[in-house]
Amino acid sequence: MLSIASSTFATGAGARMIGRVTLHDTAERGFASDNYSGIHPEILAAIVEANGGHQVSYGGDVYTERLDEVFRDHFGAQARAYPVLNGTGANVVALQAVTDRWASVICAETAHVHVDEGGAPEKMAGIKLLPVPTEHGKLTVEAIRSQVWGLDDQHRAQPQAVSFAQSTELGTVYTPEEIARITGFAHEQGLKVHVDGSRLANAAAHLGVSLRELTTDVGVDVLSFGGTKNGMLLGEAVVVLNPELDRGLDRLRKTSMQLASKLRFVSAQFLALLEGDLWLRNASHSNAMAAVLREGLEGVPISHPVQANAVFVELPATVRAELHEQFHFYDWDVARGQVRWMASFDTTPDDIQRLVKATRAALATSSASSASSAE
Amino acid sequence: MLSIASSTFATGAGARMIGRVTLHDTAERGFASDNYSGIHPEILAAIVEANGGHQVSYGGDVYTERLDEVFRDHFGAQARAYPVLNGTGANVVALQAVTDRWASVICAETAHVHVDEGGAPEKMAGIKLLPVPTEHGKLTVEAIRSQVWGLDDQHRAQPQAVSFAQSTELGTVYTPEEIARITGFAHEQGLKVHVDGSRLANAAAHLGVSLRELTTDVGVDVLSFGGTKNGMLLGEAVVVLNPELDRGLDRLRKTSMQLASKLRFVSAQFLALLEGDLWLRNASHSNAMAAVLREGLEGVPISHPVQANAVFVELPATVRAELHEQFHFYDWDVARGQVRWMASFDTTPDDIQRLVKATRAALATSSASSASSAE
Amino acid sequence: MLSIASSTFATGAGARMIGRVTLHDTAERGFASDNYSGIHPEILAAIVEANGGHQVSYGGDVYTERLDEVFRDHFGAQARAYPVLNGTGANVVALQAVTDRWASVICAETAHVHVDEGGAPEKMAGIKLLPVPTEHGKLTVEAIRSQVWGLDDQHRAQPQAVSFAQSTELGTVYTPEEIARITGFAHEQGLKVHVDGSRLANAAAHLGVSLRELTTDVGVDVLSFGGTKNGMLLGEAVVVLNPELDRGLDRLRKTSMQLASKLRFVSAQFLALLEGDLWLRNASHSNAMAAVLREGLEGVPISHPVQANAVFVELPATVRAELHEQFHFYDWDVARGQVRWMASFDTTPDDIQRLVKATRAALATSSASSASSAE
Amino acid sequence: MLSIASSTFATGAGARMIGRVTLHDTAERGFASDNYSGIHPEILAAIVEANGGHQVSYGGDVYTERLDEVFRDHFGAQARAYPVLNGTGANVVALQAVTDRWASVICAETAHVHVDEGGAPEKMAGIKLLPVPTEHGKLTVEAIRSQVWGLDDQHRAQPQAVSFAQSTELGTVYTPEEIARITGFAHEQGLKVHVDGSRLANAAAHLGVSLRELTTDVGVDVLSFGGTKNGMLLGEAVVVLNPELDRGLDRLRKTSMQLASKLRFVSAQFLALLEGDLWLRNASHSNAMAAVLREGLEGVPISHPVQANAVFVELPATVRAELHEQFHFYDWDVARGQVRWMASFDTTPDDIQRLVKATRAALATSSASSASSAE
Repeated sequence: MLSIASSTFATGAGARMIGRVTLHDTAERGFASDNYSGIHPEILAAIVEANGGHQVSYGGDVYTERLDEVFRDHFGAQARAYPVLNGTGANVVALQAVTDRWASVICAETAHVHVDEGGAPEKMAGIKLLPVPTEHGKLTVEAIRSQVWGLDDQHRAQPQAVSFAQSTELGTVYTPEEIARITGFAHEQGLKVHVDGSRLANAAAHLGVSLRELTTDVGVDVLSFGGTKNGMLLGEAVVVLNPELDRGLDRLRKTSMQLASKLRFVSAQFLALLEGDLWLRNASHSNAMAAVLREGLEGVPISHPVQANAVFVELPATVRAELHEQFHFYDWDVARGQVRWMASFDTTPDDIQRLVKATRAALATSSASSASSAE
Repeated sequence: MLSIASSTFATGAGARMIGRVTLHDTAERGFASDNYSGIHPEILAAIVEANGGHQVSYGGDVYTERLDEVFRDHFGAQARAYPVLNGTGANVVALQAVTDRWASVICAETAHVHVDEGGAPEKMAGIKLLPVPTEHGKLTVEAIRSQVWGLDDQHRAQPQAVSFAQSTELGTVYTPEEIARITGFAHEQGLKVHVDGSRLANAAAHLGVSLRELTTDVGVDVLSFGGTKNGMLLGEAVVVLNPELDRGLDRLRKTSMQLASKLRFVSAQFLALLEGDLWLRNASHSNAMAAVLREGLEGVPISHPVQANAVFVELPATVRAELHEQFHFYDWDVARGQVRWMASFDTTPDDIQRLVKATRAALATSSASSASSAE
Repeated sequence: MLSIASSTFATGAGARMIGRVTLHDTAERGFASDNYSGIHPEILAAIVEANGGHQVSYGGDVYTERLDEVFRDHFGAQARAYPVLNGTGANVVALQAVTDRWASVICAETAHVHVDEGGAPEKMAGIKLLPVPTEHGKLTVEAIRSQVWGLDDQHRAQPQAVSFAQSTELGTVYTPEEIARITGFAHEQGLKVHVDGSRLANAAAHLGVSLRELTTDVGVDVLSFGGTKNGMLLGEAVVVLNPELDRGLDRLRKTSMQLASKLRFVSAQFLALLEGDLWLRNASHSNAMAAVLREGLEGVPISHPVQANAVFVELPATVRAELHEQFHFYDWDVARGQVRWMASFDTTPDDIQRLVKATRAALATSSASSASSAE
Repeated sequence: MLSIASSTFATGAGARMIGRVTLHDTAERGFASDNYSGIHPEILAAIVEANGGHQVSYGGDVYTERLDEVFRDHFGAQARAYPVLNGTGANVVALQAVTDRWASVICAETAHVHVDEGGAPEKMAGIKLLPVPTEHGKLTVEAIRSQVWGLDDQHRAQPQAVSFAQSTELGTVYTPEEIARITGFAHEQGLKVHVDGSRLANAAAHLGVSLRELTTDVGVDVLSFGGTKNGMLLGEAVVVLNPELDRGLDRLRKTSMQLASKLRFVSAQFLALLEGDLWLRNASHSNAMAAVLREGLEGVPISHPVQANAVFVELPATVRAELHEQFHFYDWDVARGQVRWMASFDTTPDDIQRLVKATRAALATSSASSASSAE
């Protein structure tokens, strides 16, 4: 079994160690986010393997060249991938690829592009977002239709694209049929479709389908494909699936400050993730951990179907407070007492059991106290 | 001696190796750029050490916390560092920090921000650049003054900052005195000063001064501090030296798509670089290699003083063609027959000797051929 | 007494008249918008008076100088006015004055800035809007509060301002008390308040208060003050009421392409509007016409309180179709059968009576037909 | 015969005149700029004629409809005109029409877009400008070629258009042949050509050619056509000559805050200017006045060929000071003692004679004083 602990280079005799040590407890894991985790060992190994010697910078290296083929294997021969630095960057580059300067983009009110990107789509690319309310974070044709109007009205930033996350920010998953309905309607209306796939692997794992069946085959035009949340140190890719849109992407990437000079290290990580089945193993694992967690919470109010690696739970304030003392996680909607618990590629069954047990205990105490105060 | 080769994890028995191998020749090094190199072993070790377990994402980790102190050690107690993803991103974030929405920024015609960033300052931040001609890539008070006019003219994008690279894009270095003259004049005129320090370490190594003596002590307001070109996988930092300007930097970073989620790995690399003297060792080494190269080229026309890790050489076309067959490097100014040769932290004396020898040989052949054709 | 007749230029012997004629029916008026109307005679006279000779361009003229005083008379000694070209421009300049680069602005879902400006706030100024649902188009503290969160969250475009229209896009009016509640809450939260006052005069006329009582006195920070919809050919003004925000406004105006070169003609129009009581007469008149219309429609469903110069009416499709043949007006919400009828400074009582009569007739036919089809 | 006198509204019994008077001396004219002048009488008459009644706003009026035909008459059947508000706005809309998001635009160092628009191209549209030095403000193929490189380099904001002013900011004029050379080269290189024609009429008048011969016929793609400097109150037009580029212009105009609601008044002015020959009469007149001025200055150093309506003169400081006391004009290049004198449609021969006489007198005094001080 691979063991980073046994890695010799950190203790190599010749290395001038200057008191650097691992500053954190590597045994501690929480449920705050899949980006609290580190690097999967196979991906770290790929970084090491790609090191040494010189390689052409800015994407002219052999790893990036090879990656291009690998992405085509996954998404079809027409696909073209542009590795970038982070998820916000991927989305902003991708949205520029599907819009004119006068466009707006329809998304869910809960969309990462709308809520969590510091306004980067608007500020960096001038893209107006048209957020719509959804159930469980999933766009529908009806929801999209509510914003498809005024197409001949010069006063309205013209809706030119739909953007949705797969899996969603609320841990739900679109089926291929649902996506096909969205892309069908969108294309009919002249809109392009962008998928924020920072957790696309989790959706594919949940559905037991290929990445292609979730994207190319159901009409998605451009994809932000996630690496970071699935075990990479850092790296996402803008994947252009509709070849008509493959214009100037390398320039958009550069202009949008998303081009790494030593790109080989981003590409090598993606190779580790995508050449074999690591992407699927990692996603399946984190999904499975979420499912176990969900089962362990039988009887506790769960806000959304648990289809990927997130579990949204509603809990009394005292219970949340007690759990916050033991685990890292985020309150999602304080008004509703809702928290988000996320599993990661490195979440263990033991981690889940500890959380379940602690929750059960806190709930019991809480009930007892309620009962007692009700007497 | 540290040996990544002996790293066990890549060959760990349990790892499902799927045919990935190092795809490139790790013994090959050229002179194209310091970003053709890979990761310094000590920095790679730091990535490994920072791995495992969970850490708060987006900068709430202990490595980033520690890094803050380390930057203060280097730049003074008032300094505040914001690790970002790449050099273009660092510059665009930094320039936003020193400008209002109606500003322009004075820079050298040869500045990276003007020439090599795909228009990101203009496109992402709306910053108008006012490029001025220079000698050897270095701004002077006179050059800056040529653009400091119209300060009360509403039709002119108001000059609010000066931006220069240290060391410069042409391998030259500003002395602390030269910087003080620039910052003195700039401040007198109400302008802020930004330094693009993607190779600041090389300048410090050349001058034998501390990072602080080149920046804080001579009035620099905001700095882009480079890591990638000095041995990191990836990572730069915006360092605010003038505390009056430390407003909203974390938000500018996010909005500018420059915030890594697993920021601990960027910060851990910087710790490896900056806690000890690795930053200086790497820079001194690459400078030294450039100096050796320069000496070896005695008699060959050199375009600019060789003060950092770049050597600009003028060569006949046939010589350039012959050398291009053996080494990676860039033609800089084809009209002048000028090439750029850069040394990196991993350039060896042997690499230099091979280049010198090949150049000498090609020049000899070229002369002979000229002589012969002249007969 | 003013007499355009005395102007000699139009009858100058040398003028080569080339058959130009009035191309439209100057007796035709509809209910589509107050910007379908033309120029009020007194304002046209002011343009004529400001003509001839040379005046410093870009605001250095005596009309703009005088206007500055007039705005101070209306809004207080601290007020500073910047005449601009149109309403979208006024809003975009004003919103830039109350935000940093990383900000968002809270507005009503029905706000002109959100719905009718072609995305200019996002596209030209990078301002993210946070639209909230409202009743009758009016923001409340509760509605605003729903978006005031995440102020310490770097992932959220930081809410820094509230923007609302007075009178609103739905013809309703905020009382000074309602505004004070909004500004009180906003300031408490560190937010600035912008008022889109393209129809501020109508609100003041409705309430019988001064412009100042609706703005400066109740804590508004920056105002877009409308001229075009109240009888001007063209012209709005950004009025900075909070002197702390009066930084760089002239530059923002220029950079935002909102500075007229022959600014004297915009300023002269504003002088005609604001030096006397024309602003109030025009607004009172259009309000009164809307009130008469509303009274005439007794029994017909009215969607919103009629407080300014707009009447939103719900009508059967056949009735709308019939009326569209006789009058210009807009369907507002087709699903609800809602139309918007606007009165203008030049709407006459006769115009209103014709509309009322035609509506009554169409409704009667419609009822008869319904009754008949129900038999 | 048109008679504003017959307009009844100005003398309507009910108009409450409030003491407004013409605030400036309508007999005073200077040489500062053609935008210091007012409105030509025929154009003012057209505004009056277009007044009254209601017309569809935002361009749906009959004046704008008619204008479309008139522009086609001047520029060819494929031309499409979009009236906008000011010159900066026209240029920024036009440049967006010829560029992708990753583009740069080559222009003269002296170009209005570069020097006098407050950075609007960069700030509002993200367009990077590549200024090149010129002689007399005129681009040449050689000058353009100096910036046409790196077309396959993702680090360079891609040159996609050339923009030049006709007549230039220095009062010089491109011949059709010169333009054809520029457009030929540009198109060969895949670049589009934009002409800033805020004074195109002056160029046509100078050359004795039609507007079409200077634009459509020699390959210009998009034009900013000026009205304000040729006698209009306010108004320019973006004219798309290359039909391939006529995409989304109405939306770009709106998004760029350049759409007037009462557009009929902009269009009506243009009709007055363009339906007959007023555009040519005005331009010819101002050119002629400049020519007379130039002749009167025989022996005084003139910086640039006088081909349009500007004269750049070099004068001793004492002479400039003395003239500044009598006339409005701008010092252009203080270091060279250079001033700019501009003629306008309303400049009279007497105005010119006064200026010539004053200059001669000041020069004589200056010489005498020099001579005397030299004794």
